[in-house]
Amino acid sequence: VIPLSTEEIHEELSKLDGWSFENMTLVKQYEFGDFAQAMGFINKLAKVAERMNHHPEWTNSYNKVLLKLSTHSAGGVTQKDIAMAQSAEQAAKAHST
Amino acid sequence: VIPLSTEEIHEELSKLDGWSFENMTLVKQYEFGDFAQAMGFINKLAKVAERMNHHPEWTNSYNKVLLKLSTHSAGGVTQKDIAMAQSAEQAAKAHST
Repeated sequence: VIPLSTEEIHEELSKLDGWSFENMTLVKQYEFGDFAQAMGFINKLAKVAERMNHHPEWTNSYNKVLLKLSTHSAGGVTQKDIAMAQSAEQAAKAHST
Repeated sequence: VIPLSTEEIHEELSKLDGWSFENMTLVKQYEFGDFAQAMGFINKLAKVAERMNHHPEWTNSYNKVLLKLSTHSAGGVTQKDIAMAQSAEQAAKAHST
């Protein structure tokens, strides 16, 4: 797996809402209505992660989830991370009031 | 709710395994057999958090879960955080191979 170029990453991010590219990682902070919604989002995305065999780093505090996506084995952001970001957007919509 | 004194916290931590007290927060890094076990632990603890109406901060990356406990409204560690740490120990045992 080879990482995307910075140009390719910014091209992909232009199609996504609220994501940034920091330290070779895609980052987004999600904020939900409450803890239950945040956990719903987390569990939806956990299923995607298992299916893709690609796991995010995430931090949860009550209704907030900070998501960090990168592909360690490639040393950067790959198409897998873009696909995971797209899945996260869908999952967040499904779990927001 | 009033925070525990540093003396009380260290007294409580002496009865727990692998926890430290840093920046007015109880901290432990758990390591599980795989991602599914880590998620099992997180979901078990999420139920405890909802029941107690007290929510941890946690970061997950594959099989690792970094847990941080403090009571924001009290500006430190309270008996609620000790209770949550005890629940985390039980939950971790239930989800470890």
